[in-house]
Amino acid sequence: MPDMSQSADSPGSRALNISVDLFLTPSARQELERGTAGHTLLFSQSPATSMLAKAASDPNLTQADIAFGQPDPAAAAAAPRLKWIQISSSGITRYDNADFRARMANRKIMVCNSARVFAESCATHVFSFMLGQARQLPIALRTRLPHGAPDWHQLRGSCVPLAGQSAVILGYGAIGARLAEMLAPFRMRITAYRRHPRGDETVPVIGESGLPDALAAADHVINILPDSAQTRNFFGAARLAQIKRGAVFYNIGRGNTVDQLALAAALESGRLSAAWLDVTEPEPLPEGHPLLAQPHCYITPHTAGGHADEVGDLVRHFLSNLARFEKGEPLLDRVM
Amino acid sequence: MPDMSQSADSPGSRALNISVDLFLTPSARQELERGTAGHTLLFSQSPATSMLAKAASDPNLTQADIAFGQPDPAAAAAAPRLKWIQISSSGITRYDNADFRARMANRKIMVCNSARVFAESCATHVFSFMLGQARQLPIALRTRLPHGAPDWHQLRGSCVPLAGQSAVILGYGAIGARLAEMLAPFRMRITAYRRHPRGDETVPVIGESGLPDALAAADHVINILPDSAQTRNFFGAARLAQIKRGAVFYNIGRGNTVDQLALAAALESGRLSAAWLDVTEPEPLPEGHPLLAQPHCYITPHTAGGHADEVGDLVRHFLSNLARFEKGEPLLDRVM
Repeated sequence: MPDMSQSADSPGSRALNISVDLFLTPSARQELERGTAGHTLLFSQSPATSMLAKAASDPNLTQADIAFGQPDPAAAAAAPRLKWIQISSSGITRYDNADFRARMANRKIMVCNSARVFAESCATHVFSFMLGQARQLPIALRTRLPHGAPDWHQLRGSCVPLAGQSAVILGYGAIGARLAEMLAPFRMRITAYRRHPRGDETVPVIGESGLPDALAAADHVINILPDSAQTRNFFGAARLAQIKRGAVFYNIGRGNTVDQLALAAALESGRLSAAWLDVTEPEPLPEGHPLLAQPHCYITPHTAGGHADEVGDLVRHFLSNLARFEKGEPLLDRVM
Repeated sequence: MPDMSQSADSPGSRALNISVDLFLTPSARQELERGTAGHTLLFSQSPATSMLAKAASDPNLTQADIAFGQPDPAAAAAAPRLKWIQISSSGITRYDNADFRARMANRKIMVCNSARVFAESCATHVFSFMLGQARQLPIALRTRLPHGAPDWHQLRGSCVPLAGQSAVILGYGAIGARLAEMLAPFRMRITAYRRHPRGDETVPVIGESGLPDALAAADHVINILPDSAQTRNFFGAARLAQIKRGAVFYNIGRGNTVDQLALAAALESGRLSAAWLDVTEPEPLPEGHPLLAQPHCYITPHTAGGHADEVGDLVRHFLSNLARFEKGEPLLDRVM
């Protein structure tokens, strides 16, 4: 963990070079220009097509005091003036390795993600999955069953109230905490799995040793794990087999935290009653992938963080951190 | 409104005849038999196929002290021993007219519905609609768009957080109040429309005169109105035209409270951005109905109240009222 109290060397009102490699809407660009008056914006000639994509290497980095977007890790580590990288996504896979962390620490470059820009949307998205499952929406929306038909009784009876059910949330950061807030009116039993509990969690937290029991007890297994060396294939066949029979599996973290063939097998056998995935590996899944053949596997195309004017929100998040940077205050969403 | 303090003439431990015309699962029937030991259950030879259907006229009614299910209104009004009707649905359309109410009042027959059996499910259902809309689930679930594609940006950008939005709930009973509880973490501005405010509502209540302004302001118009002479075609073309452009319309009340052709036109013109309906008139809608041609009209087949073991819940609700009846206490969910 970085020392969160560490702050920039109070650059005061010094004019800064800010390299920008994310794709901006006209209004977001205007807002960025207004909010950075007095500084110099260096726009990349080839911005990333989305906040998930890697931008092309940007020669502006060599002049930049600040990088905003998805800068190339090697180029950023070598950029001589760089003091702060504001990553435009919640996930930081591209940067999350020991070598990059060490280089940032040595050079005292601060790194922030944009977690809070996406937390509300992501929590709402997985909550919409849970309610869609509770009310069997995918099935209910495609049928015109008459009252009293056997299938109609079957559909009504397959709806299960969330109230009183249990859930385990894996990867309990801003999204998980917000989800727990949203679920409060349903009085569910919620447990969080977090490798490094911080003590400020709002629900009981377990570590590795408590996980088998938690998975065996939960009606809903909610995977928000990020992509890292520790989380790759976290849900392999063995771990999936620890989940209670008939439970529902959700993934809005990263696709490669799950062994997808094992997941398809768990659905096929009926061990899991459904899977709701916003992330897969790769995205989108290719035609013919076994998960696409599972009738109770529901997939959205990595839209959990999406929301109206998200680029505007990214810019406002950056500007809010820029104000902190200028005053030498701790930055928000700092990850290195 | 009935005098809710009025109670049965304390029948004490007298053995009662209970006519039952609803379809029971084996376990629910067992629970009913156990819970009514000492009384006589008179099962109909032709029970209703669902809690929405009218049961065939049941000759047992002439012997019954209590009727549980969907008894024929005329036969019930003429049943000489009847003291209490426990209706097995939330809606009471079949009974909700001045003539029947007068006959019940004259004969001092108490009438209860089963609103609390369905409130949690119904509130969850409409909430699942709201989140499905917020996250654009019907579209997101049927696409495999790659990151960065124009349609992918469009889909992400069309997701709108509930937080900070406004809603008006029409027909603010147990379902509406529970929905308001569920929405609390989103800090929405919620207004309830109720013809006869009781003063115990948990959100601001408006009457007829406040409705045009409320409809013009709300992002979500949630119709939970029951079927009655006053509510038929409540949402005609004129009222639909009062709704804010781009708002979303939900109906989990009764289909005939809405002019469905006017609703289809409001969707066609883009005035409403979407409609989510659990009820229509008739159910299901016939092939070729204009609403079925609207891409943003999402329909479930009257399953909002459905949930696992709902017949068991109906029996437990009845038994809980039977205990009150035996002690001469006020009954739950009394409507006449």
